[in-house]
Amino acid sequence: MDMNAQQRANSGTDGHNLRPEDLAAVARLPLFCDLSPALLAEITVEASVTKYARNDIIFRQGDIPNALRVVLDGQVGLTGTIADGGETMVEILKAGEMFIPAAVLTEKPFLMSAVALQPSRILSLPGERFRRDVREKSDLAYVMLTSLSRHFRSLVREVKDLKLKSAAQRLALYLIGLTTKREGSTIVRLPHSKSVIAARVGVRPETLSRAFSHLKGQGVVVDGNAVSIADIPALRAYCHEGEEII
Amino acid sequence: MDMNAQQRANSGTDGHNLRPEDLAAVARLPLFCDLSPALLAEITVEASVTKYARNDIIFRQGDIPNALRVVLDGQVGLTGTIADGGETMVEILKAGEMFIPAAVLTEKPFLMSAVALQPSRILSLPGERFRRDVREKSDLAYVMLTSLSRHFRSLVREVKDLKLKSAAQRLALYLIGLTTKREGSTIVRLPHSKSVIAARVGVRPETLSRAFSHLKGQGVVVDGNAVSIADIPALRAYCHEGEEII
Repeated sequence: MDMNAQQRANSGTDGHNLRPEDLAAVARLPLFCDLSPALLAEITVEASVTKYARNDIIFRQGDIPNALRVVLDGQVGLTGTIADGGETMVEILKAGEMFIPAAVLTEKPFLMSAVALQPSRILSLPGERFRRDVREKSDLAYVMLTSLSRHFRSLVREVKDLKLKSAAQRLALYLIGLTTKREGSTIVRLPHSKSVIAARVGVRPETLSRAFSHLKGQGVVVDGNAVSIADIPALRAYCHEGEEII
Repeated sequence: MDMNAQQRANSGTDGHNLRPEDLAAVARLPLFCDLSPALLAEITVEASVTKYARNDIIFRQGDIPNALRVVLDGQVGLTGTIADGGETMVEILKAGEMFIPAAVLTEKPFLMSAVALQPSRILSLPGERFRRDVREKSDLAYVMLTSLSRHFRSLVREVKDLKLKSAAQRLALYLIGLTTKREGSTIVRLPHSKSVIAARVGVRPETLSRAFSHLKGQGVVVDGNAVSIADIPALRAYCHEGEEII
């Protein structure tokens, strides 16, 4: 966490670091909504909320985790780097999603860095306290298990896509993910920079435009940040989206 | 499960499906070794052990999970397929590893098929009973969480490798994984067919030989099933193994 972010940290009053409206927001998270109010109050006694500006680093790959974090508002990118300087974006997280519980639970260094892609408010549950709560409170352990399981399944899908689909198909999947429409045509606005999109899709930045060119034949036309998709069902069929057995 | 496998299913005596020696083997698994004998006996009351021959299908992608499974002996491959007929091997599991707990916990269809790559003995913990045990027994929930967390981290590493490393580098990683030596030269024997290796590495079978050719420049020579590695540290450096921050 950089000093700016530290300075922006919210600290509440009355022995509970969360303001009442923050606690109410936490209670509405799909992650925690099945927990009793008493349990929720207990596990958040040491919690805090921190604001980050766009591009603020929340933590770096290799850091030892000090807290479980949940996106309250905004958007967070998880990036992985390797020794030769390559960097990729493994995931983009939206409001309501927790991040890197695996590192926090195992007390192992983060495999990814977290960066705010938009101005974001992040809930932190201190790690030691959180691990103790999970050990002692089976309701909490169960919601963590089901949440981690869902998350695990999305990573399995990503591995399958990376191994079985082309770069253009993966780019098409990303574009389809930007719209809720399932029929007809649409225009989507790219919410991320080209380098973030390339990393997310798993191609080099210099080959992203080649992947976009491939998609011209599928009715995808780029104009600055606006991308028009002529035929959503056809593009879904092209990348086999929704066609899998699962 | 095919009928042969069903017929091979072991069913024990004395109200406990596991024979004493099976129960002892289960107690030694790293997964369960932290559980008390009483708890272990309780969660395995409805468990059974099934033998599979090489190439037997244990379950298919799309099946609804009926049990949590753990490899007692042998080796299991998890493969994913997509609509256009592509198939890839996401993971290879060895003795002591559980598989697809995420599907069992969420009661969602399997995203992968499981096939015995060697003659294998598989422990099954029926799903409904297992989910109830996890909900009620926080010790069990905790070992499941830490195990799933470790597993999750290995998938994150795989996504990073798939996005950041070349096919030849990933093949080199696979080869390095076949030896425990860290210095000098060695000869490893390929334990899987070329098509399994291609799927594991994430390349088309027809391009696996190209990846092997690339590795000739790194001192890797193939002779049938034997692969000689002239300089293990150099090959590790080539694929950045162990060089990452994490």
